[in-house]
This record gives sequence, structure tokens and C-alpha cells, in this order.
Amino acid sequence: SRSLNLAVIPGDGIGQEVVAEGLKVLSAVLPQDVKLETEEYDFGARRYHATGETLTDADLDALKRHDAILLGAIGDPSVPSGVLERGFLLKLRFAFDHHVNLRPSKLLPGVATPLAGEPQIDFVVVREGTEGPYTGNGGTIRKGTEHEVATEVSVNTAFGVERVVRDAFARAQARPRKKLALIHKNNVLTFAGHLWTNIFNKVAEEFPEVTTEYMHVDAATIYLVTQPERFDVIVTDNLFGDIVTDLAAAVSGGIGVAASGNINPAGDFPSMFEPVHGSAPDIAGQGKADPTATVLSVALLLRHLGYEAEAARIDEAVAADLGERAGKPARSTSEIGDALAVRVAG
Amino acid sequence: SRSLNLAVIPGDGIGQEVVAEGLKVLSAVLPQDVKLETEEYDFGARRYHATGETLTDADLDALKRHDAILLGAIGDPSVPSGVLERGFLLKLRFAFDHHVNLRPSKLLPGVATPLAGEPQIDFVVVREGTEGPYTGNGGTIRKGTEHEVATEVSVNTAFGVERVVRDAFARAQARPRKKLALIHKNNVLTFAGHLWTNIFNKVAEEFPEVTTEYMHVDAATIYLVTQPERFDVIVTDNLFGDIVTDLAAAVSGGIGVAASGNINPAGDFPSMFEPVHGSAPDIAGQGKADPTATVLSVALLLRHLGYEAEAARIDEAVAADLGERAGKPARSTSEIGDALAVRVAG
Ligand SMILES: CC(C)[C@H](C(=O)O)[C@@H](O)C(=O)O
Ligand SMILES: CC(C)[C@H](C(=O)O)[C@@H](O)C(=O)O
Repeated sequence: SRSLNLAVIPGDGIGQEVVAEGLKVLSAVLPQDVKLETEEYDFGARRYHATGETLTDADLDALKRHDAILLGAIGDPSVPSGVLERGFLLKLRFAFDHHVNLRPSKLLPGVATPLAGEPQIDFVVVREGTEGPYTGNGGTIRKGTEHEVATEVSVNTAFGVERVVRDAFARAQARPRKKLALIHKNNVLTFAGHLWTNIFNKVAEEFPEVTTEYMHVDAATIYLVTQPERFDVIVTDNLFGDIVTDLAAAVSGGIGVAASGNINPAGDFPSMFEPVHGSAPDIAGQGKADPTATVLSVALLLRHLGYEAEAARIDEAVAADLGERAGKPARSTSEIGDALAVRVAG
Repeated sequence: SRSLNLAVIPGDGIGQEVVAEGLKVLSAVLPQDVKLETEEYDFGARRYHATGETLTDADLDALKRHDAILLGAIGDPSVPSGVLERGFLLKLRFAFDHHVNLRPSKLLPGVATPLAGEPQIDFVVVREGTEGPYTGNGGTIRKGTEHEVATEVSVNTAFGVERVVRDAFARAQARPRKKLALIHKNNVLTFAGHLWTNIFNKVAEEFPEVTTEYMHVDAATIYLVTQPERFDVIVTDNLFGDIVTDLAAAVSGGIGVAASGNINPAGDFPSMFEPVHGSAPDIAGQGKADPTATVLSVALLLRHLGYEAEAARIDEAVAADLGERAGKPARSTSEIGDALAVRVAG
């Protein structure tokens, strides 16, 4: 019999509530013969306040033993900005070499978008996850004085860029439209820009069926609101990816339905799946959070582990659920989870 | 009698056409007693191909003698990406210390927006223009090999940040809603982020009437499409400003109507005014380009030089012209310019 051994990190704010629904749907969709084991880890603000720790070497050793990680949300206003982000979220992405940060955007029928008309949105962003301005490289001199200088260094390597560009080409190749856009700012960030552009053009030669285009990040934000149907697969750097995926989520139904995977494709370390939204402390504990993004993250998790049919069942259940929402009264977090669990089991 | 001595840089692509209309409207709106002198400079792709030069010290000396600079657009596919951007546009911004990059976004009645509903959009972005990732700091080692490493360094100084933050607070204070948002990514770019946030909070104490908020750049892109009415004045770094102003232009009528000023508030060097759009080589020379963004840039130029009434007349003329466009056949570049010239003169 098969088994799925999951690390579960509910985290802060609404994290606990949405993760509970994600697990509910996961249990409902998994084949009977798959033994689901979950181990919960108490990371985030509570642990930080109690111990000063965010993510220790021992924690990483423990997490390493799992097949995958499901995360709710990390972050709380009681913790200074950056402490949990750099000390937990980014530390984990870097430690487990999650270089493919996968963020699909699909506007499902019946779902509201801030855009006028009826835009067709169905693309996926492959955001680099371990380089760029996220490396924590940089520093400050003369802190707090009128002569303070603070730097941030974006680090880009041929190794790091090529592997994520290759991953994106392979994904584009596997999709019906076979289109790939590189987003960067190579007219200003010429050092990193040339590296990205050259590698992109080089790898493109190996994928003659994939239609490519290059776009500056500023122009990309325009296309995302005026011609989102233009996109199929996007590959981009860590910071540009952070920005365009939030915008992409906003136009394709909101961050309430945006899922993401922090993937180590080689499987050297477990991959981590999480909703794009944050911990939303203002609505925590009230049963108001929409667990859909977490449930869709569970689908990404299942797909990553080879449970394609189960992942597809979740995607279909979510599409059906979203399509029937208009005009109905709002449901609680667990009511939405229950409904999705029924659908995937049915 | 007064005089206005302008450097005019038509540039590439549609630059020549839109600048001609900008000057037409300028002539029509200027009081009789103001002597308008213009000197045209041939910068851009043509000059680069002919001489290999983008902007020499002698050019800078010549430009320095003018009261202000009006620019059409610089950039052509025949020139490698980055050459004209770094060698002309950014070189000029840095040489003339254009640290306040001013970009208003106002959705005028009757103007189409990609957003659903009837969003109220009326804000101005103060983008820092001389620091951040735009400094050209960084480099490449082992270029073209599988071991290439490319870096980009964002440089942020207390001096550079404080002056632009102060400028933004003063602008917010002078507007009816008196709101100012700082956009950064201080949870990841913690060195630069702390510098920006600390200075923002410090200067805020001197402007108790201004309501402030902080927003991560990724979240800001969401608000720009879901709650654009939330914004009044935004202050942000050079790269984030580049990105959010293109998105802001897209939602508030498109880059066809987005104007910008590269301002040296102290007047040590002439300020430069330009449309946000590029040189659009695909439609160059066909009389198809909309000169409105250039005309609005002329209004910013006039306002900067103290011609407030004349600037307001241009703004009103543009609003009236845009409001009457719906359903009418498209006009040529010069027809739009003629119509605006008539309106401002009337
Ligand atoms: C919380 C933050 C560190 C994170 C990021 O910037 O990557 C978030 O915005 C995201 O997109 O996952
Ligand atoms: C052309 C480029 C150098 C420029 C920038 O990035 O600042 C442009 O995008 C702008 O916004 O004015």
C-alpha cells in the first residue's frame, strides 16, 4: 500500500482554518489504499515570541523527512517586518532549493474579476525562487544617520537561471498553446538582463515548437490588465515574479483562489505548497477565510507527487463550486471545505 | 517681457510627431508677452548609428542652458536593448539629478479603462529617479559561460530617499485628501526597506495632517486594480515606481494619455518632461500616434515653471477632448493637436 507523509504548517492568522479545509479535501480525494500521515509543525509568530526561533537546523532536518509540505500562512503584525519572511519563508525556500515557484492563474467561469468584459485568463507563472534580489545580499552603513547607505544585491547565476528557464520551456511545450514569455527589465538591469535573455534565447533553440516573446516588467503589468489572454507560460526572476503573480491573482479571481507551489523538481528536498494570500489577521478565527486557494494548493501538491487524477478532481470541484457562488449567501470556511470534500468524493 | 527657452528632443519613432503637437499646443496657450524659444536636439537611434554617441558632455552643457526639456520618445529596435536607455535616458536623469519622477494618473470622464465598473482614479506617483536598482551598479563575471554570475546593486541613501519622501509629503499636504502611501518590499529587501520606512516615518511627524500607509509592492498591484480610489499620493523607489506607474497608466486610460516629469525641484538643472509611452516604431510616421500624453507633459512643464493657469487650461482642454471621443472616428496625430490648440486658445 502507498503512503503520503505530509508536513503541515498551519502558521499564523487564518492559516490554521484554511489548512484544516485543505486536509479535509485531501482526505476525501485520496484513494483508499493511500495511507495519509500528517505531522503538524508550529512555526510562525507564536513560536517566535515563545522561543525567538523561526526555523532551526533541527526543524529543517525534521521537515526533510516528509514527502511534501502544506503551509497555511506565516506573518503577524506583532513581529517586525522581515523577521518571519526572511527567517522562515525565504529560509525554507532557500534551504530546500525551491527554485521553481509555480503560480497558475486561471479565471474560472462565474468568478468575478476587476477587469471589464470577459477576459480569457489561463496562464502559469514560473517564478525563480532562490536568486535575484531575494538572496539577502546587501547591507547598511551609517545606519540611522543622515549618511546611511543601504544596498540590495540581486544575484543571478547561469546555473540558477538556466534550470528555471528549462523548466518553463518544458511546461510551455506540454501546453496546447506552447507560448512562453520572458519578463525582465533588460534595458535597465543590463547585467542580469543579458544573462536571463541570453540563456532564454539559447534554451529556446532546443524547443522550436515553443513561441517565445520578451517583455519588460513594466509593460507586462499593462498587458496583464489589457490583454491577459496573451499569456500562456511566463518565466521571470524572483522579484518580478512576486509582483506579477499578485497582479495575476488579482485579475483572475483574487488572491482568495490563488495557489502556489515552491518546487524542487529533482526531489532532493520536499516541495512546499501554499496559498498566495497572507495570514489576514483581521479576519482570523472568524470562519470567514476562503480556503479555496489552499485547496487548490493541495491539488498542486498532489500533481507534483504524481496523483494527477486526484488533482484534476480537486480542480473540477473548485471550478464547479466557484461557478455556483454568484448570488448565494457567503459560506464559512468550513462550509466551503465541506462542499469541496463532498464534490471530490462524489 | 518674459521668455521660455526650451530644449526639444523629438527622438525616435513617433517622438517627432507627438512633440510637434505638444509645441503647437504650447504656442497656443502661452501668453503673448512670453517669448518662446526652442532648440531641437537630434538624440536617439539616428545619432547613435551615425556617430556612436548617445549623450556627450558637450550635449549636457548645451542642454543645461535651457529652462526645461521636452522629450518625445527614445528607443529603436535597431539599437541593442539598454544602449539608449542607459546611455541617454538614464544618463540624463542622473546628470541633471532628476530625483523627482512625477507621474499623475487621473481617469477622466468618458475615457476607457480596462477595469470594470466606474473606478475613481486620481493620484500621483512620486518615483525616485536617481537611485535604487537604476544606478548601473553591478557586473558580470565569467560572461557567456555556464558559471556566469551577474549582479545588480540597488543603492539607497538617506540623502536621496529623504528628499524625495519630503517632496511627496509636501505634495500630499497640498491635495484635498492629504494621503500618502509608501510602496516598497521591506519584508524582503530589508536593508533598503528599513531605510525607506524609517525616513518615511520620521518625515511623517512633520506632516501630522497627512494620513500615511505602507504597502508592499506586490499588494499595491492588487489595490491598483481592485481599489484604485484608495490612492492619493504614492512615493516609491525607482524600480517599483517604474512598474506601478505603467500599471497606473494602464488602468487610468492607457499610456496614450500618461504624462511624466523628471524634475529637479531645486532648479540646479533643467527638468525634463516626456510622455510615459515609448517610441512605438510600428506606427511611426503614420499620423496614428495620440499626442495627448505629450500635451499633458507640456502642462506639467508649464506648471513646473510657474505657468499654473496655462497648465490648467491644457488639462481642461484634454479632459474636454477625451470626453467627446467616444463613438467618433479616430483622428490623426495633428488633428488631435489642432483640436487641443483651438481649445486652449479659445
Ligand atoms: C511574504 C513574502 C516573503 C513572499 C514573497 O515575497 O515571496 C510573498 O509575497 C509571496 O509572494 O510568497
Ligand atoms: C525606458 C526606460 C529606461 C524607462 C525606465 O525604466 O525608467 C521607462 O520605462 C520609463 O518608465 O520612463
